Amino acid sequence: MKTQLDVIKIGGNLIDDESSLSDFLNHFSKNKNLKILVHGGGKTATQLSKRLGIETQMVEGRRITNMDELEVVIMVYAGLINKNIVAKLQHLGCNAIGLSGCDMDSVLAKKRQHTEIDFGYVGDVEKVNIRNIDLLLENGICPVFSAITHDGNGQLLNTNADTIAAQIAIALTEMYEVRLLYCFEKNGVLSNPEDDFSVIPFLDEETYQELGLSGTVSKGMIPKLDNCFDALRSGVSEINIGGSGMMNPKVFNFTKLSL
Amino acid sequence: MKTQLDVIKIGGNLIDDESSLSDFLNHFSKNKNLKILVHGGGKTATQLSKRLGIETQMVEGRRITNMDELEVVIMVYAGLINKNIVAKLQHLGCNAIGLSGCDMDSVLAKKRQHTEIDFGYVGDVEKVNIRNIDLLLENGICPVFSAITHDGNGQLLNTNADTIAAQIAIALTEMYEVRLLYCFEKNGVLSNPEDDFSVIPFLDEETYQELGLSGTVSKGMIPKLDNCFDALRSGVSEINIGGSGMMNPKVFNFTKLSL
Repeated sequence: MKTQLDVIKIGGNLIDDESSLSDFLNHFSKNKNLKILVHGGGKTATQLSKRLGIETQMVEGRRITNMDELEVVIMVYAGLINKNIVAKLQHLGCNAIGLSGCDMDSVLAKKRQHTEIDFGYVGDVEKVNIRNIDLLLENGICPVFSAITHDGNGQLLNTNADTIAAQIAIALTEMYEVRLLYCFEKNGVLSNPEDDFSVIPFLDEETYQELGLSGTVSKGMIPKLDNCFDALRSGVSEINIGGSGMMNPKVFNFTKLSL
Repeated sequence: MKTQLDVIKIGGNLIDDESSLSDFLNHFSKNKNLKILVHGGGKTATQLSKRLGIETQMVEGRRITNMDELEVVIMVYAGLINKNIVAKLQHLGCNAIGLSGCDMDSVLAKKRQHTEIDFGYVGDVEKVNIRNIDLLLENGICPVFSAITHDGNGQLLNTNADTIAAQIAIALTEMYEVRLLYCFEKNGVLSNPEDDFSVIPFLDEETYQELGLSGTVSKGMIPKLDNCFDALRSGVSEINIGGSGMMNPKVFNFTKLSL
C-alpha cells in the first residue's frame, strides 16, 4: 500500500488575515501525514501594485500579467508570503522549504497562448518533476509552493495556485496515495453562497453539473471544482474543500467530492 | 580526500547589470565542481523603498532595517532576485534551488543586539545546518542563497551576504574541501582603488594588516577581508576575490588570500 500524502492548498483570504493564517498553520503543522502546502496570493500583490502605480490591465474581465505585475507577484508570492509561511512553520516545528516552480525545475509551465487575448506572463502547468519533490518528502522536509512557475527558458510565470495544487497532487499519485485539500475561508461548497451554514457534505460530478448549471454554486467555485474532478479522474484518491479545521480528523464539516 | 565544494558569493553590482549577471551565471553554470551560490542585494531594494516612500533610516552612518524595509528586502532578495537567478540557471542546465535561511532551517540568525543602536531586523548568523544543504548537493542540486535568514521564532532577518557565504563555507568544511570565491565588479583587491589594474595577486594576513592600516585598501573591503581571514582560520582551504572570470581555470587575474 502506498504512503499517504496530503497536498493542501490555501487561498488568498486565509493568507490576508494574520490570525486565520496562524490558525491554519497550527492545524497544518499538527498534521502528521507527509504533506505539501500550495499557497495563493491574497490582496498584498494588488495593494503593492496600487502603491507602485501599476495599472491592473483587464481584458474581457480577465487580469493580464504584464512585466511590472509579474515582478510584483514574484516579490509577494515567492518572496514575502512564501518565506513568512516557512519561517512560521519552522517555529511550529515543521521543517518547511519554500519553493517556486523554477526551484529544482519542479513545476514547468508554458506561457498561455490564446488566439484573441495576450494574457502576458501567465503560465499553464506543463509538467511536475516529482523526483526531487519526493527526495524532500522522504527526508522529512515539507515543500511549500508559491504560485510562481517557470518556462525552462529563464522566464518566470504567474500561475493559478489551484491548478498547481491539482497538478502536483496528480503527479505524485505515482508514488503516494494522495489526498487533496482545498482550504479557504468558508466551511465548504455552499448550496446557497449567502448562507455559510449551507455546506454540501458530499458532491459527486453529476450533482455538480446540475448545481453548476442551475447557478447554485458561485462562479468562483467553478474552475476550482473543475480542477478537482479532473484530479479525481487522474488518480487522486480523496478531495475535500473546507476551512482550516478540516485537517483535524474530528472535524466533519466540509465538502467531500467524488466522481 | 574530501570532495571539492565551491561557495561563490556575488555582490550587488554584478546583479544590477543584466549583462554582467548573465556573464557571471554562464561562468557559474560551467563550473563542474559541487557549488553553492550566495547573492547580495543590489540597488533594486533601495529603488523599491524609494518608490514606496519608505525612508531609509541611518544611525551613525549605518542603515537600520525597520519592518517596512525588511518586507522590501524579503521581496527583492528572497523573491525577485533569487527566483530570477534560479530560473536563469535552470535554463543554463544547472539544477538550482533558491533558498533563504528559513528554508530547511538552513541559516539560523540572531537579531543584532547593540548597547546603543537598534539595528532593527538585522540578523547575525548563529548556525548553519549542513545536513539538508548536503542532501541537496549529494543529489546534484545547487543551492542559491539569498541574504535573508530567520531566528527560529518565526521572524525573518536581513543578514550580510558576505558573512552568510563565509559561515556556509566554514560549516561545510566538515564534509568538503571548501573553496570560497567572492565575485564582484573588480578583478580583485586593488592596491590603488582608483586603478582597476592594480590587483594584488597574493595577500596574506600580515600584509593585509599593513595595507589596511595604511588606508590603501578601500573601506568597503575591510569587513569582507576580515570575514575571509576568519574563514581561512576556520578551515576553508582557499579564498579568491575577483571578477566573474575567476571561475575559469585559465584566468589568474584575481586576489588569492592566505594566512
